[in-house]
Amino acid sequence: MRIIITGGAGFIGQKLAAAIARAGTLPGPDGGEAVRELVLFDQVEATPPPEARVAIHTVAGDIADTAALDALFAGGADVVYHLASVVSAAAESDFELGMGVNFDGTRAVLEASRKAGGGATRFIFTSSVAVFGGDLPPVVEDHTAPMPQNSYGIQKAMAELLVSDYSRRGFVDGRALRLPTIAVRPGRPNKAASTFASSIIREPLQGEEAVLPVPEELAMFVLSPRQAIQALVHAAGIPAADFGGSRSVMLPGIRVTVGEMISALRRVGGDAAVARIRREPDPTIEAIVGGWPADFDTAKAERLGFQRDEGIDAIVEAFIEDDSLPAARAAFVQH
Amino acid sequence: MRIIITGGAGFIGQKLAAAIARAGTLPGPDGGEAVRELVLFDQVEATPPPEARVAIHTVAGDIADTAALDALFAGGADVVYHLASVVSAAAESDFELGMGVNFDGTRAVLEASRKAGGGATRFIFTSSVAVFGGDLPPVVEDHTAPMPQNSYGIQKAMAELLVSDYSRRGFVDGRALRLPTIAVRPGRPNKAASTFASSIIREPLQGEEAVLPVPEELAMFVLSPRQAIQALVHAAGIPAADFGGSRSVMLPGIRVTVGEMISALRRVGGDAAVARIRREPDPTIEAIVGGWPADFDTAKAERLGFQRDEGIDAIVEAFIEDDSLPAARAAFVQH
Repeated sequence: MRIIITGGAGFIGQKLAAAIARAGTLPGPDGGEAVRELVLFDQVEATPPPEARVAIHTVAGDIADTAALDALFAGGADVVYHLASVVSAAAESDFELGMGVNFDGTRAVLEASRKAGGGATRFIFTSSVAVFGGDLPPVVEDHTAPMPQNSYGIQKAMAELLVSDYSRRGFVDGRALRLPTIAVRPGRPNKAASTFASSIIREPLQGEEAVLPVPEELAMFVLSPRQAIQALVHAAGIPAADFGGSRSVMLPGIRVTVGEMISALRRVGGDAAVARIRREPDPTIEAIVGGWPADFDTAKAERLGFQRDEGIDAIVEAFIEDDSLPAARAAFVQH
Repeated sequence: MRIIITGGAGFIGQKLAAAIARAGTLPGPDGGEAVRELVLFDQVEATPPPEARVAIHTVAGDIADTAALDALFAGGADVVYHLASVVSAAAESDFELGMGVNFDGTRAVLEASRKAGGGATRFIFTSSVAVFGGDLPPVVEDHTAPMPQNSYGIQKAMAELLVSDYSRRGFVDGRALRLPTIAVRPGRPNKAASTFASSIIREPLQGEEAVLPVPEELAMFVLSPRQAIQALVHAAGIPAADFGGSRSVMLPGIRVTVGEMISALRRVGGDAAVARIRREPDPTIEAIVGGWPADFDTAKAERLGFQRDEGIDAIVEAFIEDDSLPAARAAFVQH
């Protein structure tokens, strides 16, 4: 089985590649399937995962470059993880960039998958909670209309529709996973509007200052990187027919306020860690993230076997185990 | 005020042009505004409306041709009615054609409107009941997610999202009207999957045979051409802020079964007219049209002042008054 991951140099791409390379298999509708080759595509050369039990190739290229995509797919594609994306705040500040990558890029990768797989290619796409916004019911359900209030969400929502249509027509076998806000992410703050949700845990645990641009009352719908990777792997094995009339599914997260995140930080890192959070209100960030709902009924995801984290403490612990620097692990041991 | 109508040679475009040319004004947020020039754009040269009180220009061109659009918009555009579209069955049988016209074409006209109007251009787009499908609640509401089960609906739903984003960003002032099935249409059967809904009234009243590809129990959500034109005119005058978080609105139709349409035909044309309906079941047509819901709560449209037809008899009478051949009018007088 040949697997292509776009955005393979990104944080989710790297974690997913490591998980697949370590396992050497990926779930299929009829059980585990052996992976022959894993190709990581990104703008920059991706780091190959360690301890790989499968052949790894890294390809640097532009997702808008048809020739590059043709070359990438020339070896076939049994499963495509299309993760490449411009993040929310960047898509908001540069409309053309967001449309080019998040919509046109997805369309191009769908077309390449269609040509390469004759309809059999499983196309797994990461959409986002950001497809929801505006006037919403108290609880967002699987039948609630996406009305994104930012260009990132619009582009993801349009791409989702295309994934469903390509699947219905038999061009690909698509699955579009709407990710909750992913936290705690490793690394550094990025241009995602929600980047603070990781920063306020990650930086203080590593002895650094974090910026909090939103009030403590703000609630988010959160999923850990560990569960996100499990969801992406799980998605490959779900029978197509189980998706029903839409290939989109909102993944189950947990509802957590910023205040609850800070309390979890205190339980692990103490008051000293919490003191490293600097409040710096940013109405633009608050408007974007505050427009994403936090209360969901994710019945479809549960029916399809996706799982949520146990709670915010479990999310913080998963970060410490999987991603934190030694300073954070030491702090964890102390408390 | 300069108004551009794409699809200006089509049936709705022609009726809309006639209505605007006759009135010489169009509603604005601050009352009626005088129309200086009305431009009808289509693949073929449009027929200019009779009795025009405004300057009329007709332009033949391809909506995918950037240079043609640039020329079209060079004179400015206060209001754009973007009606140009590939109909449902044609978009289903030729995916690339549908994407090219219904999505890429709309995107190109949005871009042209953005450049021409500096954000002030009112962009009025005809979407469709076909955006709904799949597993739906018993009554479709304004917050119900579009999950189109045909490529036409997918393309319309994607274009709607783009209209909302262009509006939120201040690129245009958009309004996307989801049309119910429009019946009774004048003219001949076309490639729309729902064409029978007009045929089974129109052809028998004109002494011709009509083909009915679906069972009498099938229910549809229907709007007369007369009310559709009124809605398009009305849409120009709604204050932008009244639309809320989405520029899309499902227009109020009436729920009517094919059997009820046939009864209305009998009341006007007698058993002789009904006998001209030939049953010829077509599972493809039934699958497409049967997938469109017929039960709606159109609260948003009602709040915005859109109106429905009084009933199926009123719809049939409007057809006879507005569009029928002498033979139909004679039949109407007899009964």
